Amino acid sequence: MRLATIRTANGTRAARQTPNAFIELGYADVGELLTRADWPTYAAETAGAAHPLSVGLAPLVPRPGKILCVGLNYRTHILEMGRDLPAHPTLFAKFAEALIGPYDPVELAPESSCVDWEAELAVVIGRTVRRATEAQAAAAIAGFTVLNDVTMRDWQFRTKEWLQGKTFEATTPLGPVLVTPDELPGGVRPELPISCTVNDELMQKADTADLLFTPTDLVRYASTILTLRPGDVIATGTPSGVGHARTPARYLADGDVLSTEITGIGHLENLVRKI
Amino acid sequence: MRLATIRTANGTRAARQTPNAFIELGYADVGELLTRADWPTYAAETAGAAHPLSVGLAPLVPRPGKILCVGLNYRTHILEMGRDLPAHPTLFAKFAEALIGPYDPVELAPESSCVDWEAELAVVIGRTVRRATEAQAAAAIAGFTVLNDVTMRDWQFRTKEWLQGKTFEATTPLGPVLVTPDELPGGVRPELPISCTVNDELMQKADTADLLFTPTDLVRYASTILTLRPGDVIATGTPSGVGHARTPARYLADGDVLSTEITGIGHLENLVRKI
Repeated sequence: MRLATIRTANGTRAARQTPNAFIELGYADVGELLTRADWPTYAAETAGAAHPLSVGLAPLVPRPGKILCVGLNYRTHILEMGRDLPAHPTLFAKFAEALIGPYDPVELAPESSCVDWEAELAVVIGRTVRRATEAQAAAAIAGFTVLNDVTMRDWQFRTKEWLQGKTFEATTPLGPVLVTPDELPGGVRPELPISCTVNDELMQKADTADLLFTPTDLVRYASTILTLRPGDVIATGTPSGVGHARTPARYLADGDVLSTEITGIGHLENLVRKI
Repeated sequence: MRLATIRTANGTRAARQTPNAFIELGYADVGELLTRADWPTYAAETAGAAHPLSVGLAPLVPRPGKILCVGLNYRTHILEMGRDLPAHPTLFAKFAEALIGPYDPVELAPESSCVDWEAELAVVIGRTVRRATEAQAAAAIAGFTVLNDVTMRDWQFRTKEWLQGKTFEATTPLGPVLVTPDELPGGVRPELPISCTVNDELMQKADTADLLFTPTDLVRYASTILTLRPGDVIATGTPSGVGHARTPARYLADGDVLSTEITGIGHLENLVRKI
């Protein structure tokens, strides 16, 4: 099943994607839909108003209770940098104000001159869970989507803590759809090509099977710390190829087109625009 | 004016504190009350059901949209450690799941053996603001409260990013009340003794006038990054005297009583309890 948060004349609506349309499900967005305990059967069976596939899309979950992000997590990339594999995931936060729809412009704030891309697979939580076992963690994963953890590198490295470079307003596309694990090769441990291009130039290319901490590892780890709830998002980290690590460094500029794709889920396409 | 979120038989309620009672204001909590543009006059003039001062108190804002925390921010403490004064505040996040009421127990999770205290002055936002001027920042501060940024030091230092040690469930008392700036010496730059004791032993003692980045500095800085909204909380950092920096290090243990006080605002008193 594929779910999205569509934009209608009456505000956003949770919808199921069919081959021909988006079908309204009676909730304002996917985050609200997921609070329903029986959301999988409800979403599969409910049939409200239909919208064309060209309807506008909002951030998949517009206001997640939490957005947890993971640092370095692609095994090949860690090893090629000569680092040891870490014992624990590096976690940091992002706030909902950072989110934009899958085809919305990324705001280039005048306060930063080092805006970079980070293509990521994102987990969307579908069930309340604390101190999850492996089976509970798998069951808590509603599905997967695409996120680009666009980062102000100058602000990220102003201090030891990355948060301030990670949560600039209207910088982080999330979507286009949530795909449930049963539709993906690998299930809750998806094996999917992930890539990022800037103006059609390939910048990042990897496979989500290479994640060191898998989605269920991350759900288990984070749920040790605090309760995960429906609509929470975990961004699982980015592979090699970010602009900051290139020689010379390369950053996003006004007018660039940032494209982020995970085969089997979909793609984000975002014009980068000075504000 | 002094505002609190009280616990009643019908759930939480925003309330104004008078010398003799808490008076209900028709909102579920202080966070919701602050979304009302005219909250200062509304809260001063409304008179709902009265409750005794002994009524239970919830976290002052139970579900803030954002909790931003600041690292090292007491000038004297930075200088005594031989460090240069930083050019920018260090920001990190905490999630709402971490919050507890001002007299609720702090949960000592079995996964950590290094649980530490950090007494802090917290700013509560009362008006939506982005890229605030100094005057806009001052006007966006609804008032001040007390927070103890209880920290799992072992988890804080597992990776470079502190988040995972900062947001364990049910560890961070917030309250007891919001005090508007007009009632405090120094106004939006409060000059108030702050202290922290464990079992009546004094651990931290400072004055909020010593903050390097003032409350309005922090509102301006954070609002450059993203929109601040009513009910958002900024924890302004802790002075010297945390357990981790003592020789030998000292951490909270089952049965300890953690007390955090800011003169003119109030105090938190939290039993530390193994779960």
